[in-house]
Amino acid sequence: MAGDCAHVNLLVLFLNARAGAEVPRVPALVTGTLNMALARIARNGFRRSGGTIGNYRSERDVLCEGLYAHKSPIPSVENVTAGRNVSYLSSIKKGDHVSFGSRGIRVTPHYQFAQAQRIEEESDSESENNENQRYPSLEANKPGEKPRVVVLGTGWAACRFLKGLDTKIYDVVCISPRNHMVFTPLLASTCVGTLEFRSVAEPVSHIQSALAKDPNSYFYLASCTGINMDKHEVYCETVSDGGLPREPYQFKVAYDKLVIAAGAEPLTFGIKGVKEHAFFLREVNHAQEIRKKLLLNLMLSENPGMSEEEKERMLHCVVIGGGPTGVEFSGELSDFVMRDVRERYTHVKNYFRVTLIEANEILSSFDVGLRQYAAKHLNKHGVRLVRGVVKEVQPKKIVLSDGSDVPYGLLVWSTGVGPSEFTKSLNLPVSPGGRIGVDEWLSVPSVEDVFALGDCAGFLEQTGRPVLPALAQVAERQGKYLVELFNKVGKQNGGKAFSAKDVPLADPFVYKHLGSMASVGRYKALVDLRQSKDAKGISLAGFVSWLVWRSAYLTRVLSWRNRFYVAVNWATTLVFGRDNTRIG
Amino acid sequence: MAGDCAHVNLLVLFLNARAGAEVPRVPALVTGTLNMALARIARNGFRRSGGTIGNYRSERDVLCEGLYAHKSPIPSVENVTAGRNVSYLSSIKKGDHVSFGSRGIRVTPHYQFAQAQRIEEESDSESENNENQRYPSLEANKPGEKPRVVVLGTGWAACRFLKGLDTKIYDVVCISPRNHMVFTPLLASTCVGTLEFRSVAEPVSHIQSALAKDPNSYFYLASCTGINMDKHEVYCETVSDGGLPREPYQFKVAYDKLVIAAGAEPLTFGIKGVKEHAFFLREVNHAQEIRKKLLLNLMLSENPGMSEEEKERMLHCVVIGGGPTGVEFSGELSDFVMRDVRERYTHVKNYFRVTLIEANEILSSFDVGLRQYAAKHLNKHGVRLVRGVVKEVQPKKIVLSDGSDVPYGLLVWSTGVGPSEFTKSLNLPVSPGGRIGVDEWLSVPSVEDVFALGDCAGFLEQTGRPVLPALAQVAERQGKYLVELFNKVGKQNGGKAFSAKDVPLADPFVYKHLGSMASVGRYKALVDLRQSKDAKGISLAGFVSWLVWRSAYLTRVLSWRNRFYVAVNWATTLVFGRDNTRIG
Repeated sequence: MAGDCAHVNLLVLFLNARAGAEVPRVPALVTGTLNMALARIARNGFRRSGGTIGNYRSERDVLCEGLYAHKSPIPSVENVTAGRNVSYLSSIKKGDHVSFGSRGIRVTPHYQFAQAQRIEEESDSESENNENQRYPSLEANKPGEKPRVVVLGTGWAACRFLKGLDTKIYDVVCISPRNHMVFTPLLASTCVGTLEFRSVAEPVSHIQSALAKDPNSYFYLASCTGINMDKHEVYCETVSDGGLPREPYQFKVAYDKLVIAAGAEPLTFGIKGVKEHAFFLREVNHAQEIRKKLLLNLMLSENPGMSEEEKERMLHCVVIGGGPTGVEFSGELSDFVMRDVRERYTHVKNYFRVTLIEANEILSSFDVGLRQYAAKHLNKHGVRLVRGVVKEVQPKKIVLSDGSDVPYGLLVWSTGVGPSEFTKSLNLPVSPGGRIGVDEWLSVPSVEDVFALGDCAGFLEQTGRPVLPALAQVAERQGKYLVELFNKVGKQNGGKAFSAKDVPLADPFVYKHLGSMASVGRYKALVDLRQSKDAKGISLAGFVSWLVWRSAYLTRVLSWRNRFYVAVNWATTLVFGRDNTRIG
Repeated sequence: MAGDCAHVNLLVLFLNARAGAEVPRVPALVTGTLNMALARIARNGFRRSGGTIGNYRSERDVLCEGLYAHKSPIPSVENVTAGRNVSYLSSIKKGDHVSFGSRGIRVTPHYQFAQAQRIEEESDSESENNENQRYPSLEANKPGEKPRVVVLGTGWAACRFLKGLDTKIYDVVCISPRNHMVFTPLLASTCVGTLEFRSVAEPVSHIQSALAKDPNSYFYLASCTGINMDKHEVYCETVSDGGLPREPYQFKVAYDKLVIAAGAEPLTFGIKGVKEHAFFLREVNHAQEIRKKLLLNLMLSENPGMSEEEKERMLHCVVIGGGPTGVEFSGELSDFVMRDVRERYTHVKNYFRVTLIEANEILSSFDVGLRQYAAKHLNKHGVRLVRGVVKEVQPKKIVLSDGSDVPYGLLVWSTGVGPSEFTKSLNLPVSPGGRIGVDEWLSVPSVEDVFALGDCAGFLEQTGRPVLPALAQVAERQGKYLVELFNKVGKQNGGKAFSAKDVPLADPFVYKHLGSMASVGRYKALVDLRQSKDAKGISLAGFVSWLVWRSAYLTRVLSWRNRFYVAVNWATTLVFGRDNTRIG
């Protein structure tokens, strides 16, 4: 089809331009006024356009669509709807919408498939009016109004972006299945009661108060299920409640600019049984579940008549993955054993063991001296380090690739993250590793007004830059960069859809690694200030590092309220020990 | 049968003695040494006794049993087992084991019925040895060991008892489906984020550290499913886990003395739909569920396309029952609206309403002046008071007995408590109102070494005393009284089963009401210092009362850790507002 050809041509041109690397850039955000005007018409007046649809289309397509509109007066929005629903369906089939939840804590129920199917079937025979009734929507802003930024996600990138957004210039809509940001580096501490869950969660309306207060800004507790880049609309589905007028409750939101910061999903490498039996450690409710299981096993193992073997199994905590999260969680567990288990579960204290299984080396991104320090420290404090590759996870044991069995009572899976089904479903350019591909300005080329950052985004191969690691500091830095860019563009009246003018977009995003930190338990931490894995620089291990680690994290916690709570938690844990209430 | 006759005669004697009221007493606990010796023999040597069984038996029965043992050498322990299992089954049929959980948070699964049935069938053809294998057990203490007190429950009464128990004299086993005590008067505050959940929960091992540390003391996370008063054993089932060697995991625990403080259940008056659709407010996880629902409704009502009617329904919080809990929760909700909803949910703030439905008068136990004050105050701050009787609860509306409908988004049911299915199943003497009947020493007459207190217990009619209200202060006072009695008896070597000597048990329990308190929101509370409903005395309402209320509660919180946390929570709520993170 014409649109597709145009698109391909444009992409080739674009790629050619990129090949020349340092050419001063006019990104996809900045387009010609003809396109812009026509696109506006296409959006507002000529919605019943025909022709190609699909998410992966350039501004040129929109132009074509505007032109074709007169040729095909028969309402063909149904095609668009059908097309969108097809991609929507395909994403559901892949097990979509779960970029935030996992392991039984899915936020969107499975029955939506049937519903979506029905909508698709019916949409061929019904009018646009009905379609709109079925999809309640937040319509596009009117000409005199502020441009609307829609942000998908409430992680590090999204929240840093939200925090800095100039809400005098923009209206903002944030869409996420959770209404808070999680201070992920401290999540491991909440599992054993060192910190309260609330202390590591920051409500998004505290981060950006406009979401709660501005008449045209909103937070929607929903999952994004699809995007129509052409119509500048996102499709959403609320977190299920069981009491809404219809379920699943779907709606759409028009945007001027879209920021995709929807995060990534834990990698399971297709290993059987991981999703069913292992816990992840990415959300506050994951930490809650881990805590509940840990305390439950401790208590149940005291029951009369439990065999030695069964006690050993129930109190064997296995952590898979020797990255910072796995190491920190193991360290917290060993601390927990040292003080809390020995004092409060004296009947079973000798059965409690912690094993960390890693296929390669633990903390592979750290300096070799630090790695050795960590291994030694963990070993000394009762964490058994095992080299192994998991072949299968069964309800009560792990089978390793060498055939050996590892019985477990609690299994925490922390082997890094990969692209979520949602981001994969978007049909956008991809970076190496399958993330949403972006250019040096974090803009998605070939579609207009779409930006991606954080764990879900990576530099396109043709930018010549490496895909950055899935770290909080990367996401935060990107959020900061992008919001400054947005505020700048907005001040120059480039906030509206298709309206960015030919203003060069200042400097591209450059990431400077500030170093890595990880706590290993017992008031010890590692601080690696080298800028990259192979560079030279300062690295520290021990108590001073631990102080650096704590104070660095405390200053990164977003609000004073939570800073205060984290400090209070740390102090009370020191004085009173960890809390071992099992709620629920 | 002989045993039954003896029992009836003894009961009559006992009641006659009681009728004379102030006669210095030799309670069931204190029996003749002959009985004691024979009983020990019956327990240890002659378990295969025949004759009557049943829970409701006097020490005389035990004597008879000991004598009959020689006459019936055929192993009739199966009869005992069968008999026990019958009462056990009947309790299960009634929907037992749920005295602590409610509304979908049942702690013990339903499938146990089949299991118990199977055990009953098989027990006729198998030996005692097999029976013991099926029920792992904590066997009776040996002669040289400390006597064992088994406490059922972790509420106010149980925890006050546990706190005071002299663990140099006694071993202690606590059995409860939750490992913490809940500071119930502050539970309403946690639903809206004024207080953290953790601040109102106190781990039982902090209250009595012997449970964690002493080699022969334990806390079991389990529900009690039945008691064999004759064998001095309780039957338990662990909270389900899904990973135990067999499920349900049942076991038995022998006791020297048994303290039943298993609490009560919310009254629903058999009204259809209450259990399915309403929230209760008795456990920390109830408060968590209420909070989640409240925040979910606030967020979902902001979704595009919600009709006015739907928004009004979703944000209509209905509280049924005008007792202190209902009033305090309504007050907290109105505070929540005043500050938090108006600032953080500005798009929907005008839809939020609170209605308190009560069949009679709110706070009926309070002074009439205070009642009027409360009604006026609640009205002024947006709580609508409605007189009405609920006929039926449907998923989205309540039907009142006058035929009117009340649509709701959140329904909290707080109409008092009544005897749980567990206590009803025990086949013990009953007090007016169906609680476990106790004498003035909180001992259950006609069975030996069994005591009951708190919401599950009430004075027998023949004591001439009224059943005390189901209040924390009653339960706490009873716990304090009983543990002092236990420590005294224990020091005189009366701790072992059937071993209490002819020592008069000091004074009976006397309850002196210290007054009632209830907060009504906006820094206002009621304090009624009258000793009974009809007496005269001081009553206060307003800010000073609120200060009294807060400080009184703060000093009642059991641990310094939680006192500190509650104070910190109150301070941070004042400074930063309530937390509105929705986790899970």
